Order: sequence, then C-alpha cells, then structure tokens
Amino acid sequence: MNAATPTSLPFALVPVALADRSYDILIGSGLIAWQASWAGLPAASTAVIVSNTTVAPLHAARVREALQSHYRRVLCVELPDGEVHKDWQTLNLIFDHLLANACDRKTVLVALGGGVIGDMTGFAAACYMRGVPFVQVPTTLLAQVDSSVGGKTAVNHPLGKNMIGAFYQPVRVICDLDTLDTLPPRELAAGLAEVIKYGPIADGGFLDWIEVNLDALLARDKAALAHAVRRSCEIKAEVVGGDERESGRRAILNFGHTFGHAIEAGMGYGAWLHGEAVGCGMVMAADLSARLGLMPAAFVSRLRHICERAGLPVRAPRLDATHNVERYLELMQVDKKAEDGQIRFVVIDAMGSARMQAAPEALVRQVIEAACA
Amino acid sequence: MNAATPTSLPFALVPVALADRSYDILIGSGLIAWQASWAGLPAASTAVIVSNTTVAPLHAARVREALQSHYRRVLCVELPDGEVHKDWQTLNLIFDHLLANACDRKTVLVALGGGVIGDMTGFAAACYMRGVPFVQVPTTLLAQVDSSVGGKTAVNHPLGKNMIGAFYQPVRVICDLDTLDTLPPRELAAGLAEVIKYGPIADGGFLDWIEVNLDALLARDKAALAHAVRRSCEIKAEVVGGDERESGRRAILNFGHTFGHAIEAGMGYGAWLHGEAVGCGMVMAADLSARLGLMPAAFVSRLRHICERAGLPVRAPRLDATHNVERYLELMQVDKKAEDGQIRFVVIDAMGSARMQAAPEALVRQVIEAACA
Repeated sequence: MNAATPTSLPFALVPVALADRSYDILIGSGLIAWQASWAGLPAASTAVIVSNTTVAPLHAARVREALQSHYRRVLCVELPDGEVHKDWQTLNLIFDHLLANACDRKTVLVALGGGVIGDMTGFAAACYMRGVPFVQVPTTLLAQVDSSVGGKTAVNHPLGKNMIGAFYQPVRVICDLDTLDTLPPRELAAGLAEVIKYGPIADGGFLDWIEVNLDALLARDKAALAHAVRRSCEIKAEVVGGDERESGRRAILNFGHTFGHAIEAGMGYGAWLHGEAVGCGMVMAADLSARLGLMPAAFVSRLRHICERAGLPVRAPRLDATHNVERYLELMQVDKKAEDGQIRFVVIDAMGSARMQAAPEALVRQVIEAACA
Repeated sequence: MNAATPTSLPFALVPVALADRSYDILIGSGLIAWQASWAGLPAASTAVIVSNTTVAPLHAARVREALQSHYRRVLCVELPDGEVHKDWQTLNLIFDHLLANACDRKTVLVALGGGVIGDMTGFAAACYMRGVPFVQVPTTLLAQVDSSVGGKTAVNHPLGKNMIGAFYQPVRVICDLDTLDTLPPRELAAGLAEVIKYGPIADGGFLDWIEVNLDALLARDKAALAHAVRRSCEIKAEVVGGDERESGRRAILNFGHTFGHAIEAGMGYGAWLHGEAVGCGMVMAADLSARLGLMPAAFVSRLRHICERAGLPVRAPRLDATHNVERYLELMQVDKKAEDGQIRFVVIDAMGSARMQAAPEALVRQVIEAACA
C-alpha cells in the first residue's frame, strides 16, 4: 500500500452543500499522509491539533508533518480520553492552550480523534474569539459516518448530554480509513450502529447492502468501509443540507437516540459507548414503530438481528431497581427533543422513511419493559 | 407620564437587517410596561428572565408581568453583579437553572441588565441546546447603544476579555429609556463614551450634535437620550448589517477598544468600567491617528474635552511600576484584533471615517507614554 497515492485505493469525495458554510468530506486510505488532503485550507500562521492521549500517539506525528507544509507553527493539545471528559473543564484546556500560545482568530483547529474530540474541538472552534476555522480528522467509524459531519458540536452538562453546544461547520472532513485499523472491536460495532441507522431512515437498499456486507465490514475490508462511509455521509449530507439547525427533517438522524440518550445518561456517560446506546435505542424505536402500527414485527426482528451480528447490545439495561420505567421516562423528558413536555420519537413509517411523532406514554412503557426484560 | 402609551413620548424603531436573523430595536419611555413591545416574539411555554441582584429588584417584576401575557411559565435567574462575574462559572448558573427546570429548546431567554448580563445571556442562548431565542432588555446606556445590538456575545477567560463567545443575534432589543433614571452617574458616563465613539468613526454631524446636547444627556433628558440611542443604534445596525462576523468594516466599532482592553485587563476586570476604558482608549487612538499624520492635533484635544465633559477619565493608568509600556504592549498582543502577531488599530482618517491600520511600535509607545504622563 502506498500512502502517497490514495486515488489508487477506494476514494470518494462527498460535498456538503450549506451555502457559504459548504465543505467537502474526503474518504479513503492514506489520506492523512496525502498532501492534497490539506491543500486549500484557510491561511493562518498557526494550526492546533486537538487530540487525546490514546489517538495522538498513533496519528498525531503524521498529521503534524502534513500540516507543517501549510502552517508556520503547528501545536498539539492532548486531552484525556473518554466521554466522561466531554465537559467544560476539558474544553477549557483547549482555550488555555490557545490563549497561552497567543493564538489569533485565524488559527485553524484540527480535531484528531473520535466523536468526543470532534464535538469538543468543534465547540472550541465555535467559541474561541467567537469562531475560528476547524478541520475534522475522525479516527473512529462512528465519527466518520456521523459526528464529524453536520456541524453539531457540544459538551455535556451534569444534567444532560450535549446540552451546551453550537451548530458550527468544519471547513473540511478527512476520513482516513487506515485509522480504523487500530480501532477496538467494540468501537467498530458502535460505529456500525450509525451506519445501520441510515438504512431504515433513508435508504432500504443500503440496509440490504449492509446485511450482505456486514462480515466484510467487521473484517475492516477497505472497499466495504469506503462504501459504507461514503453512503452514510451522502445521506447525512443530504439531510443536513436541507435542515442545518434541526428545525425539521434533520431530526430523523436521531432515530434511536431518544432511548439511547436515556441509556447513556442513566448508566453514567461513558459506561455504554454512544453507538452501543444508539444500537439498542434503534431496536426500541423500531419496536415503538411496530406498536404504533407503522411497521410489521418482522422489521423489528430483522433490525435486532443485524445489530446483534454487528456486535451491538440489543437488550436495554435496567436503570433503576424499583422504578426502571419511570427512570427512563424521566431521563427522556430532559432530552433536547422534548418540547412543551411531550416526548416525540423518530419512528419508521416505511422502509427508508422516518418521521417525528409523539407516542402515547403507555406504548413507550411497553417498549421499555420489553427491551429490559 | 403614562407608561401604557409610549408612542406619546419619544419613540423610535431601528431595524437591523441580517437576512433571516433580522430584528428590531425599540427605543422609548415606558416600553417594558407597553404590551406591544412583547408582541410577536417566538412562541414557547417558558420564558426565563436573566438579570442580576442589582437590576432585578428594580425592573424584573414589570418584565415578568409583561411576559406572563405571552408565556405560561416565567422564570427568573439572578446572577451576581459585575464584570468580575462575567465568566464560565456564572454562565453555568444559567445552564443549571434551565436544565433543573427542564427548559426545552424553544425557551426564550430575556436579558435584563447591562452589557455583562446581555453578553452572558446571549452566549447562554447561543449554546443552550445549540441555540434558543433571546431578547435584549438593556438597562444601561452602554448596553442600549452598543452591546445589546449586533450579536456579539461572550464571557471572559482569565487570559483575556471576551475570548470565549459567539456571534448570535437577539430576536428583539427593547430599550426602555426609563431604566436609565436609576443608572449611577459613572455608568451614564461610560455609556456616553460609546455614543461619542459613533461621531468620529461614522458621522461628524452626530459629534457636533453631542457637543451641543451633552448637558441635556447628562441631565437624562428623554428626548435627547432617545435621539442619542437611536442614532447610535442606526450607525451600529448599518455597520453590523454589512459585516456581521467582523471580517472587515465592523472592526471600526472597536475604535478605542484595543487600548481600552489593555486598561481593563491590566487593572483587573471591573476596576474600570468598559466605557471608561473605551473613553480613555479613544483619546489614545485619536492621538495615534494624529501621530500617524491622519488627523490634526485639534481633533485629539476636541475629543479629549468632550470625554472630560461627559465625566470620563482621559488619563491612562499605569499598569506596571517599572515596565508600563511593555505591559500595555503585552496585553494588546493577546487582544482579538492581533493577527499574525501584528497589532492593528482602528484609526480616524477623516471626521466620520475610520479604518484599520497597523502602526509602528515606536508611535504606539509614544501614545502610551503621553497618555500615562
């Protein structure tokens, strides 16, 4: 494999059309070392790589080398690793570093890591001096297919996940598939949850493709991964392009997330990976769709089976010994999608088609009880 | 005076044109109690007044009463008063309150107070669930003529003022001139600094008007205040409308602010009022304009005299016993307007006309030495 010629390997470019905030997603092998990946970024004297103590040792040196051709000064901040550190205190380490090094308002931030690093770096970029440009270099499958695209940035608050954040778009996303080689199996599965999600909500044919190619994806076959990342990004880009600030259709991307956030919050952030919670939450949301009479029971079994094959948990955890259902309902109330006190869910109303809908509490209780059984 | 009929008193409406982020500034007496001031705001179940322990006792009850006609639930958060509290810890009190009360993403925040409250509430609105609408009800002259208009929101960082923030527009600004009746004289003067600023940078005739009407303004004559606030907002709205994110011309609004920020930071935030620092900084920036050969010395004397009459300090403080000039230069380096290590200043190149320009360090040193003498 020659890292200098990624075009000889699976390579794709997905444009995200958002007027003056448009950008490209590059997908392929060897992209970090490929100079063209970094061409045409905003001019500045300084670029700052933001990574964590797990990812930086694996990839930061090559990113630094690539950036040094374009920026006079390349700095690196290493944050502690993990969802438990996705908070204001850790975010402030970025600000401290930028200010201590007199970084100006043209400074380019480069997020090198998974979803936590991308969300925090993006939010730091949104807020530092009221906005500096940033590049996403996602190193997990979940970040490549979901969190690095679309401009949602945030940190957690003790009372809720991603409660403090901004819509702020990167200037480029560089998905180097080689970074997935070192990804722990559990994180690969978590990423597959978001890949699988795009099928039911937007493209039934893609779900068929996933069913056929799931073993290749689990074996990290580059051609299969390239297709999965590209198709996921295409769907996400199309949805986000029509509804950047999630006033309408974009919400369908949260399929499985209302239940999933309750699991994440109830177990304590970081106990379940986000993608694991979403995988389980998707099966629950599919079950709700069936109980609402929108989809056949066979759809729920099929989705559960695909998630199981991907290595995802499909049984929901108990969040409270005596008041489990109430605990779920309580946690879902403070979820961002709760408006005027009514919980709305993303449901599937036909294969490849999703919509937002409020559900009777009795049905939601049945879903939780069945999933935790 | 009948608060229910503000149209019988000085009243003006200034539109701010920013595409889908456009809004109106209402200026007049009795506006808080006037129901029409609050008509047509975004629908929601909850409005949250954010104020401080000084302003809330004076005005929060009337704001609450007005809001109760439009929102089922009206909450109030009282923050500690002062620039020293313009930090993340205080901002987080707003988030804590919103989350503890299960406020959703439609919740409308209402900033009731001066520039600190407006900046923090605006930033909280920008970040809470990635953005909720907010209304500015500025209760200081400085906030009415400057900080409540244009969408700059921020908190301070120990290493720099307003370093963490966002461009985020309010949905309405309600400038009730009656709130200025209780304003301490020092804060009135601080507000006049920003009013005076608009003359040299954009409208020589307005500076003439200020010179003639300064005594009426100091006596809080409502007609004079209405004109001063309206003309200031018109100029700011025009400048901001052409350059929302300060990539170009908007920077002229920072006339006096580079020196001013050094004074504020060097003295410790809160020791000098922002407007006082800007007043002194304007005289220094005028002096720099003269030393660059752009303006006659008479302009500097005239501006200094107007600032003195307004009750503003025109002698700069010493920031260091032995290395005073170096301390100023050091503090100005980390100012947001420093790009690529070069300090650029807003200078006046003709009455009513400003531009950005880098200045030789030797001249800047002369300005600091003269101002501190």
